[in-house]
Amino acid sequence: MPYEYPQKVLFKHCDPAGIVFYPRYFEMINDCVEGFFDDVIGVPFEVLLREGGVPTADISVKFHKPSFHGDRLVLNLSPVRFTAKSFTLEIRALCADEARFTSNSTLVYVGSNGRAADWPDAISTPLKQFSEVTL
Amino acid sequence: MPYEYPQKVLFKHCDPAGIVFYPRYFEMINDCVEGFFDDVIGVPFEVLLREGGVPTADISVKFHKPSFHGDRLVLNLSPVRFTAKSFTLEIRALCADEARFTSNSTLVYVGSNGRAADWPDAISTPLKQFSEVTL
Amino acid sequence: MPYEYPQKVLFKHCDPAGIVFYPRYFEMINDCVEGFFDDVIGVPFEVLLREGGVPTADISVKFHKPSFHGDRLVLNLSPVRFTAKSFTLEIRALCADEARFTSNSTLVYVGSNGRAADWPDAISTPLKQFSEVTL
Amino acid sequence: MPYEYPQKVLFKHCDPAGIVFYPRYFEMINDCVEGFFDDVIGVPFEVLLREGGVPTADISVKFHKPSFHGDRLVLNLSPVRFTAKSFTLEIRALCADEARFTSNSTLVYVGSNGRAADWPDAISTPLKQFSEVTL
Repeated sequence: MPYEYPQKVLFKHCDPAGIVFYPRYFEMINDCVEGFFDDVIGVPFEVLLREGGVPTADISVKFHKPSFHGDRLVLNLSPVRFTAKSFTLEIRALCADEARFTSNSTLVYVGSNGRAADWPDAISTPLKQFSEVTL
Repeated sequence: MPYEYPQKVLFKHCDPAGIVFYPRYFEMINDCVEGFFDDVIGVPFEVLLREGGVPTADISVKFHKPSFHGDRLVLNLSPVRFTAKSFTLEIRALCADEARFTSNSTLVYVGSNGRAADWPDAISTPLKQFSEVTL
Repeated sequence: MPYEYPQKVLFKHCDPAGIVFYPRYFEMINDCVEGFFDDVIGVPFEVLLREGGVPTADISVKFHKPSFHGDRLVLNLSPVRFTAKSFTLEIRALCADEARFTSNSTLVYVGSNGRAADWPDAISTPLKQFSEVTL
Repeated sequence: MPYEYPQKVLFKHCDPAGIVFYPRYFEMINDCVEGFFDDVIGVPFEVLLREGGVPTADISVKFHKPSFHGDRLVLNLSPVRFTAKSFTLEIRALCADEARFTSNSTLVYVGSNGRAADWPDAISTPLKQFSEVTL
């Protein structure tokens, strides 16, 4: 089962064409990943970031259909690949059952010195479990 | 003479009504103050923030007329009041000679411990000079 | 009773000092007002904006204490003054019982031609009721 | 020759780790494309959007190194593929000669009805020329 993150399209997200300004989708994606670490991994970003970080190494997004002010989106986060140092995830954003965008991104772990490192156990254990159960 | 900061209204600033979404004006105001510290005070924020900070204690803004995509604004920053621990400034945003908004805000200095402190000399000297010459 | 709008401080809200970047507070304020029109007035912005708008004419904010990543804020929206053409409101943002900021802003109604107009009945009736009950 | 768009990393772009918050890069990418249409194509977005639009159909970005507050980036926009209905472009962001990110995105043209359409001549002529000269 993917992790579901609901997000109504608000006024602030929309551009002069009345649709979501696409850089705002990347804020939604970041919020969804932050919610996932909070709700599923059990290590909220505000705790995780005291000792390290989870920068995004790469991201690709296809925009299928525009989203309009008031649309009720659900971002569905699924695992793609889990390794000792990285986690690749897909997010499919749906409005009812219409796909709006699909993103594919890879997170890496960095320690307090800013260098790539293995996931700490507190993160790797639930991340591995989510990956195995959901894949 | 006020410090002048030009800012074209870009697509990202505009809302579904085709005018500037007002929280974006506060980013412009922050960019203008950052430019002022860089160009006039000679202490860029990226240097200043290594040892302290200049949080905004309060701000009030009147929006006179909407701004549209493509408008070429100039933000005019003038001193209002300079003290040992604070600096109050006005920014008038004009498009040609039409006023779009006027803001009034107070910056304070905080040291590396996050507490209010006197302006360091490197800041207070040019800030005082700007205040005296311009007022 | 004020209208309460909860908002956790997320990674996207925070600046290099680890506290909320104040232009982000204005997005929160806008989201709170949008929630208020949805939940209390019964006219969501995505409906209201088809025929008119509610631009902010002025706003002033005092920042009492910084907010940190992970803080759970509640924005409390109360009426200050209701007239045929405007609505002045206060928002007090609390973290537990510590005040973080207080804003005071005035909304006006504009019709489809972009000019100031009286509130339509569908808005003025619940707005008046909220103002009378809450004041 | 790519189109060059300079962008200093400002306070507003940076996150609690002191580096650019990656959704802000997408605003920079959008600003760069807007600058390109203004400076190279000769059809500014504020004119183009009266009759149509240029939504981004897909985008992928690799983040090579973090960018810090104060860094002076240059975004270098080059053509990848030009067709009757789309334009694929690469943006390489450099700080001095260090690559920070590389994006690859496809723009499509939509008419006033929101449907995909051929580029109007006023856009396709300079877009084709830029593609031929630069490829």
